[in-house]
Amino acid sequence: MEFKISTEREAQFINITGLVQRAVSESGIQDGIAVVFVPHTTAGVTINENADPDVVHDMLLGLDRVFPKSPAYRHAEGNSHAHLKASAMGSSVTVIVEAGQLKLGTWQGIYFCEFDGPRQRRVYVHGLGSGC
Amino acid sequence: MEFKISTEREAQFINITGLVQRAVSESGIQDGIAVVFVPHTTAGVTINENADPDVVHDMLLGLDRVFPKSPAYRHAEGNSHAHLKASAMGSSVTVIVEAGQLKLGTWQGIYFCEFDGPRQRRVYVHGLGSGC
Amino acid sequence: MEFKISTEREAQFINITGLVQRAVSESGIQDGIAVVFVPHTTAGVTINENADPDVVHDMLLGLDRVFPKSPAYRHAEGNSHAHLKASAMGSSVTVIVEAGQLKLGTWQGIYFCEFDGPRQRRVYVHGLGSGC
Repeated sequence: MEFKISTEREAQFINITGLVQRAVSESGIQDGIAVVFVPHTTAGVTINENADPDVVHDMLLGLDRVFPKSPAYRHAEGNSHAHLKASAMGSSVTVIVEAGQLKLGTWQGIYFCEFDGPRQRRVYVHGLGSGC
Repeated sequence: MEFKISTEREAQFINITGLVQRAVSESGIQDGIAVVFVPHTTAGVTINENADPDVVHDMLLGLDRVFPKSPAYRHAEGNSHAHLKASAMGSSVTVIVEAGQLKLGTWQGIYFCEFDGPRQRRVYVHGLGSGC
Repeated sequence: MEFKISTEREAQFINITGLVQRAVSESGIQDGIAVVFVPHTTAGVTINENADPDVVHDMLLGLDRVFPKSPAYRHAEGNSHAHLKASAMGSSVTVIVEAGQLKLGTWQGIYFCEFDGPRQRRVYVHGLGSGC
């Protein structure tokens, strides 16, 4: 399963929980795990708070402080900070599935993490377990 | 499978390897993988050294330096640094299981990472493979 | 499945995509996932750009800045910065497998991350899905 998303800013977290749940439902998986994989090197995926948008704002700010752009970087595209942020968040998350539903905590959402946008991006979802 | 833990400090690494192994044993899984998932957004899970407690001390100190509390953060709960640390460590780890045992390296332990405690927390474990 | 690698420097990213693909091919797995697990606590694994070697240079530099060696660390071996880097990158990556092939993005490679070398290291690969 695969879906596309369009990011709108240089750095942005986009809540893809609904899209992942839809992919899980379409796969027919009932009990097992879902792997959400981002096939890019300047974008990642993470799980974090789905309620207050200020958390996402603060996470983007915090990551900017930890991995700033730097003239010391050699990579000619000038986006090494984005590669670092992508690896810090990771290229996949794994979520347990029960009765066809992602077993997330109350406040958890799955976020696509854009660090070098805006771009057209893709997300892969693979379910493993009974029913698929 | 699911278990609860009580954290005792604001930031703390708790070795849960034994609890995860017990869950794996109860699941009956023989060969496959175990996914350890933390359903919280200010706590995470990581694998690191199980021998010298100074490593855990230093990791907590290092994470504090990288993701300090900041007046620039907007989130009213004041724990955005904890959300950042949680995503930096991650919300799950995946461990290979062979003959019913977690296939960890000699010095590896699985640590629950509390970043906004003390609290009552939960951990999910899901085994996938033969025997379950 | 398991393979060994020898690292040559204190900190180094080694592209192991070919070795992982070979392990996946030998396992016979056709459709599912491959878990790549590093059983060490001062080394990790991540997915990032496979094209321009300057990206790896910049990532090692960026990680050094974020997690420098520090006299404040207690751990007597003096490699707490390496433990931090290992947890920041993570001890495993999970990749979707389709028709026997790792389903990576065009620019993605799987990198073994040495942070306290040079050493002899091991990597575990476990495939899960149809055909294995």
